[in-house]
Amino acid sequence: MPEVKLEEVRRFMEDSLKAVGAPESEAKAHADLLMHADTVGHYSHGLNRLEFYINDCQSKACVPTAKPEVLKESGATAWVDGHNALGATVGNFCMDLAIKKAKECGVGWVSAKRSNHFGMAGYWALQAEREGLIGLAFTNSSPIMVPTRSKKRALGTNPIAMAAPAADGDKVVVDMATTTVAMGKAFQAGHLMPLGGEEKTSGYKGSKSTHNIRGWELESNQGPPDLGQCFAAINPECFAPGFVDRASDCLNTWRNLEPIDTSLPVLAPGDKEHHIGEATLAKGTVNYPQKQLEAMETMAKRIGVKPIQVVSN
Amino acid sequence: MPEVKLEEVRRFMEDSLKAVGAPESEAKAHADLLMHADTVGHYSHGLNRLEFYINDCQSKACVPTAKPEVLKESGATAWVDGHNALGATVGNFCMDLAIKKAKECGVGWVSAKRSNHFGMAGYWALQAEREGLIGLAFTNSSPIMVPTRSKKRALGTNPIAMAAPAADGDKVVVDMATTTVAMGKAFQAGHLMPLGGEEKTSGYKGSKSTHNIRGWELESNQGPPDLGQCFAAINPECFAPGFVDRASDCLNTWRNLEPIDTSLPVLAPGDKEHHIGEATLAKGTVNYPQKQLEAMETMAKRIGVKPIQVVSN
Repeated sequence: MPEVKLEEVRRFMEDSLKAVGAPESEAKAHADLLMHADTVGHYSHGLNRLEFYINDCQSKACVPTAKPEVLKESGATAWVDGHNALGATVGNFCMDLAIKKAKECGVGWVSAKRSNHFGMAGYWALQAEREGLIGLAFTNSSPIMVPTRSKKRALGTNPIAMAAPAADGDKVVVDMATTTVAMGKAFQAGHLMPLGGEEKTSGYKGSKSTHNIRGWELESNQGPPDLGQCFAAINPECFAPGFVDRASDCLNTWRNLEPIDTSLPVLAPGDKEHHIGEATLAKGTVNYPQKQLEAMETMAKRIGVKPIQVVSN
Repeated sequence: MPEVKLEEVRRFMEDSLKAVGAPESEAKAHADLLMHADTVGHYSHGLNRLEFYINDCQSKACVPTAKPEVLKESGATAWVDGHNALGATVGNFCMDLAIKKAKECGVGWVSAKRSNHFGMAGYWALQAEREGLIGLAFTNSSPIMVPTRSKKRALGTNPIAMAAPAADGDKVVVDMATTTVAMGKAFQAGHLMPLGGEEKTSGYKGSKSTHNIRGWELESNQGPPDLGQCFAAINPECFAPGFVDRASDCLNTWRNLEPIDTSLPVLAPGDKEHHIGEATLAKGTVNYPQKQLEAMETMAKRIGVKPIQVVSN
């Protein structure tokens, strides 16, 4: 597969987002989000999704200049209107607020309506982890899952992410979809997590319930996704002392469990992404399928951006 | 199976707990917890567990006269020492505090160390739901689960429960174990939930990590379980208005999905328990296996309590 330098991928993402109206800061923020996915090996959530965002900006389903706004606030909570800004814009606004609140009163729990797709949920949980907090992120999503006994799709993959700090920069990162395949009980567990992220179509002020969310096609003409998301931060220092050491003890216990196959060591949650991320950064490049790069070239021409330059071998 | 009146089961539970030193109020609280399980059809967590609690009280692993104590507190959080009191004693203390905090600042997040088995996690989430809040409850548990790739058990079932109010007394109740069978990704998701509920054996002040927790045998001589538990309440009124109506819209949408088999309607989470609970209360009795009643009779003799009286037919 063709190889592209990380800085070139980032350049292309930022240029593309700016070409459809994103301010420099928000183009950079959104590129950060997508680069994280491609760096840790979740290619489905990186460059692969750029064209969706670009199209949503062009159709005004996403408003990249919009600024999120706090609608309601209490000591530990906030309810935010994302005003259909880019997912990264809403995510940074909400998680920064959750972090601030967690530092003030132990927990910060911020929910957003009218948000856009926010990429890997784990990326948001990690923002809190970097501040020494436990981070949580949830989002609803388009209905693709068929509940038990049902003929019809009604639930999304509704991802759940959690990140917690351990000692010496180590961490636990959980990032999972709540669909049947991943969870087996998604019908029971998947739907109610994005607090404040649900509404009747008839005009409540929350975001849409999953069964009312638009599909996510490349060329969609269904208006803003109006997603409901939730960002939370919890300060572990408010509970038993020594959290990071106990987290490390767990991580190390799991990693040192005797494996069934000695060539397959037991992994702690997040280890796989951590290892791939380190390798990607060391290598300095990502490989993309030729077909994906061709699609990006077509898009680049369409929006007047310099196409991705592949590393020549 | 022999049939026993609900009030007779409750009488026996209360008498038994009082016989091993529980004050009237705590015997009643703990009987409530066990009765809830038998009423909604989770017989594994009802009378079936009584002897474990009785034995733990007798061995002093559980101290039924102990009073939980707040060790650390912030606006939205508290860290509690359960002092090895009965699970219901610690649960009521912590969830009451979480509810109070959620009413004050939007979220209440309370973790306990040195707790005992607290029965069905859903019972605790429902305490917050009854107050119009979203309730969450987590606990760690004895290691019975083998993580992916590992030869050895290292994780527990670590239950997770959530309850949320809907309109006109309707509700969503999720109560699930995080073992592989139930969740498929338990290794990633199951372990870090009980905040403050983990420690190195070497003397941290949190409770034990799952890999350090004693097994739970009927005749155990391993001292207090020292479980870590977490009780949280979130006020939905701090986010988008109309939460209960939106929750009802979700519930009704799910229940009205066209089923594959018309004799098997799609259920919303908690529906099954709700239906069984209504039927049990209408009937006024529970059926137990003869063997279980014989074990209870032996225990009754041992602790000097009047045995369970079966309904004569």
